[in-house]
Amino acid sequence: MPEYNPKFMQRAIELSRSGMNDGDGGPFGAVVVRAGEIIAEGNNRVLVDNDPTAHAEVTAIRRACQKLADFQLENCDVYTSCEPCPMCLGAIYWARPRAVYFANTKRDAAEIDFDDSFIYDEIAQPMDKRQIKFLHQPSDEARLVFEDWQSKLDRTEY
Amino acid sequence: MPEYNPKFMQRAIELSRSGMNDGDGGPFGAVVVRAGEIIAEGNNRVLVDNDPTAHAEVTAIRRACQKLADFQLENCDVYTSCEPCPMCLGAIYWARPRAVYFANTKRDAAEIDFDDSFIYDEIAQPMDKRQIKFLHQPSDEARLVFEDWQSKLDRTEY
Repeated sequence: MPEYNPKFMQRAIELSRSGMNDGDGGPFGAVVVRAGEIIAEGNNRVLVDNDPTAHAEVTAIRRACQKLADFQLENCDVYTSCEPCPMCLGAIYWARPRAVYFANTKRDAAEIDFDDSFIYDEIAQPMDKRQIKFLHQPSDEARLVFEDWQSKLDRTEY
Repeated sequence: MPEYNPKFMQRAIELSRSGMNDGDGGPFGAVVVRAGEIIAEGNNRVLVDNDPTAHAEVTAIRRACQKLADFQLENCDVYTSCEPCPMCLGAIYWARPRAVYFANTKRDAAEIDFDDSFIYDEIAQPMDKRQIKFLHQPSDEARLVFEDWQSKLDRTEY
């Protein structure tokens, strides 16, 4: 298990404050650490970039992957000023760092009117009970693309 | 409730195939539709961009938001060749389209070795049971940034 280093959390919190002050987006910051060094930083940029996916963690993960020229964050740790929302949690699982350290919780985020807890609740709901409708439209053609992926010999597994 | 139009799903499936054939990433495609027209398209670009967040839905959502110069997809529908993974589901909730239509399911994705189902299972686990460790490190300073957000008079709510 990697060791927690408070100086990296300190930096994530600084980014949460500077991003908020600059009007980039909500008060969230994150850094990706590898071998005792920050390799990428991010803050929430939803407003300044008009990008609902530009959360601090997604931003830091994308930058770290660019730096490593890899789509995986092997042997990396993520420090974030707040517990990741479901989108960022998903991004973390796809990037596969070793560990995630967070300061504020999703309950703290709900208290300042961010929807993280609500989205966690929605994921747990059956589709027909969700506030955004998710409608299954089965397609033989879509299935065939999946079959062709499986029989593709030169595919990169990931 | 918006009406499902199979021609938009057809396009999402075409994108899933062409992205796979081009080696961009996995066999996934998506489009964002508004007022009966496709306003943005995306396919999985994880491999070509070294970006674990570049799923078809995230890519299409980001492009649609750029086009609309907004971080919300009001009155838009998302058509995707496969049920969104938790990251994309989160992105959809933050972007707030009206509806999501999908063809293949997360079970279909698991059959061709994509981790979507696994990540859904992990979200439902308590943190100490997850395969990636999520560790809470409470910080007064991080809490203070949230308090300052709340008292910020010129903030944009989102």
